[in-house]
Amino acid sequence: MFEGPVQRLIDELSRLPGIGAKSAQRLAFHLLSVEEADAHRLAVAITDMRDQIKTCGRCFNVAAEEFCSICRDQRRDVSIVCVVERPQDIIVLERTQEYRGRYHVLGGSLSPINGIGPGQLRFGELMDRLEPERIEEVIVATNPTIEGDATAMYIAREFKPQGVKVTRLASGLPVGGDLDYADELTLGRALIGRSEL
Amino acid sequence: MFEGPVQRLIDELSRLPGIGAKSAQRLAFHLLSVEEADAHRLAVAITDMRDQIKTCGRCFNVAAEEFCSICRDQRRDVSIVCVVERPQDIIVLERTQEYRGRYHVLGGSLSPINGIGPGQLRFGELMDRLEPERIEEVIVATNPTIEGDATAMYIAREFKPQGVKVTRLASGLPVGGDLDYADELTLGRALIGRSEL
Repeated sequence: MFEGPVQRLIDELSRLPGIGAKSAQRLAFHLLSVEEADAHRLAVAITDMRDQIKTCGRCFNVAAEEFCSICRDQRRDVSIVCVVERPQDIIVLERTQEYRGRYHVLGGSLSPINGIGPGQLRFGELMDRLEPERIEEVIVATNPTIEGDATAMYIAREFKPQGVKVTRLASGLPVGGDLDYADELTLGRALIGRSEL
Repeated sequence: MFEGPVQRLIDELSRLPGIGAKSAQRLAFHLLSVEEADAHRLAVAITDMRDQIKTCGRCFNVAAEEFCSICRDQRRDVSIVCVVERPQDIIVLERTQEYRGRYHVLGGSLSPINGIGPGQLRFGELMDRLEPERIEEVIVATNPTIEGDATAMYIAREFKPQGVKVTRLASGLPVGGDLDYADELTLGRALIGRSEL
């Protein structure tokens, strides 16, 4: 056991995902050896984030104000909404610079085995956005997993009758990947989704 | 780029050793999803550690008071001192429950290539402890590396003329290890240090 305050920090760090006892110890001693101001900045950054970050009132992305920066952006195409599982998925999509619509964070994907049914996800909130934003297309960008696929199917079934187009991100070979390393499922999807040249 | 406060925390987390951009992002979103109190406890633990932890006035271990818990412990054998490179090495030695003396944290090991000479390490402070604590043996527990060995040699050369016994932790095969996996240097040390049965 280390001196109390050191051990308490090691304990807290160990609770973080992917940080084991050894890493926590290494991080604690690192924070003990750096400049006081550097350690302080990390502590403040944690507190500030929790104090300042809210959930966007429209799309449930993280937001520093009532609405997130994407929802506040007047240049976005409001007729398209991209449905993602978690806020961090938005950044990945934004980096592609291929998408100019808005988002909707579901908060997960349908997973009956984990007790996550439609009532636990933000489908109703998405439904409520259709009319005021005059949404014409819902792009489902849930993960290409069984749960993500089931969620996409559910959205198609619920939203197509409302007259909106429901699309799904393509599954297939990763760009720059090697055919040799592709698993059968991915390769199967790539075959089904093949396009004419 | 994430909303300001999220990005600032990601930036701070990325500065930690062994935490890349992806891990920092994952940790930040984890801290956003946990209970407010959990995130707050981590921030407080960092600040508290920096506020409360000092360096032991005798052995330079981490200490919550003027002297560390080991130096304050009246049952320790003060005639033996174990020299380590860093405070975290003390814990590893304490876990063996084989050692009942005190410690001395050098602050590193001799490494001319990195500009660390005797002047950068706490040799003088160790010398000053010899008389008041009536130290009879100095156990050198620096790492079994070139730098650690050089440091051990230096200590032997400087301290033996003072009439103290200088010893070094044995190098050899790790207990439970496989001879097959031992590198030649370790095996060579194991041979040199062999003991009669």
